[in-house]
Amino acid sequence: MKTSLGAKTLASPTPAWVVCAYDQAGKANGATIAWGGICCSTPPSLAISLRAATHTHGLILAARAFTVNVPSQDQAAAVDLFGLISGRDGDKFAAASLTAVKSELVNAPYIGEFPLVFECALTQVVELGLHTQFVGEIKDVKADLEILDPDGKIDLEKMGTVMFAPGSRQYYGLGPALGPAFSIGKKYVK
Amino acid sequence: MKTSLGAKTLASPTPAWVVCAYDQAGKANGATIAWGGICCSTPPSLAISLRAATHTHGLILAARAFTVNVPSQDQAAAVDLFGLISGRDGDKFAAASLTAVKSELVNAPYIGEFPLVFECALTQVVELGLHTQFVGEIKDVKADLEILDPDGKIDLEKMGTVMFAPGSRQYYGLGPALGPAFSIGKKYVK
Repeated sequence: MKTSLGAKTLASPTPAWVVCAYDQAGKANGATIAWGGICCSTPPSLAISLRAATHTHGLILAARAFTVNVPSQDQAAAVDLFGLISGRDGDKFAAASLTAVKSELVNAPYIGEFPLVFECALTQVVELGLHTQFVGEIKDVKADLEILDPDGKIDLEKMGTVMFAPGSRQYYGLGPALGPAFSIGKKYVK
Repeated sequence: MKTSLGAKTLASPTPAWVVCAYDQAGKANGATIAWGGICCSTPPSLAISLRAATHTHGLILAARAFTVNVPSQDQAAAVDLFGLISGRDGDKFAAASLTAVKSELVNAPYIGEFPLVFECALTQVVELGLHTQFVGEIKDVKADLEILDPDGKIDLEKMGTVMFAPGSRQYYGLGPALGPAFSIGKKYVK
């Protein structure tokens, strides 16, 4: 039996990523986001949403580029820091002892210590209400060697994940493998 | 040290949700999607992307409504089924012994047996390339009583999660709690 919870943003899984952009002086800034995801396969694109009140919102509009930085499971506290204070009020990179690395592909910095990075060029801006959605074309994905399997592919079990639970406001990590996609549903096909 | 993986859609966590819509004859259809997420807090909105070639793409454009159905962790195989075959070729609800329930709020069906359901009215259509992004305003969230805590809030540890890993094409479940958001990052704030 189902009950109504109201019109709320309680989806799961929801990511916990850090979006980075430069300000006009070339200072790196980062902000934690949970509203986002892959939105297109060709061109490979990613969408993230920010409130207009955030510092990063204006920086992305000006620089027309951003990176999305995916933490390993043991970096949840650093992700949380980037959502706690505004880049206007302090240097989050310095506070968390993280390095802002200049992308060679887009006009944005990425977090050197995070294992997986998406370098994105802004392609669309969609006004949705409180949030603005920024669509970025993924120009490259960079990964630490430590999270790759012997074939050079991401081994999620090495990296883990950090997901945000909007209801309880808890972070959760990667759980058990549940089976291969495009396969485990075949048991229902006659 | 980082290596380039190319311009790919390898983000994590990525959801595994079933999007449902009616066809013109009132037949329920569902499709598994991994490209999507919450995109706005006010109005509460969710974005999902579909290729124009899919059956569900045209149904959402015609009905101007859809539901997003979030499985419990033991329903990964049913989610997979909805991504294996087209609604043009078979009745996925019947194959997986699932019930299409008519929403009273929007012109779309939801999956009665899935524990968490978002009823959405189509508000924006964004052409991105291979995929079209459908933005839906969340009119209500309906949840099974079994996944709620005593305060009536979603207990993710009761529901679990099903996430899709785009690289390895594996499904994964919910892992350990990593700490409270807006809190665990405070250790870095002087």
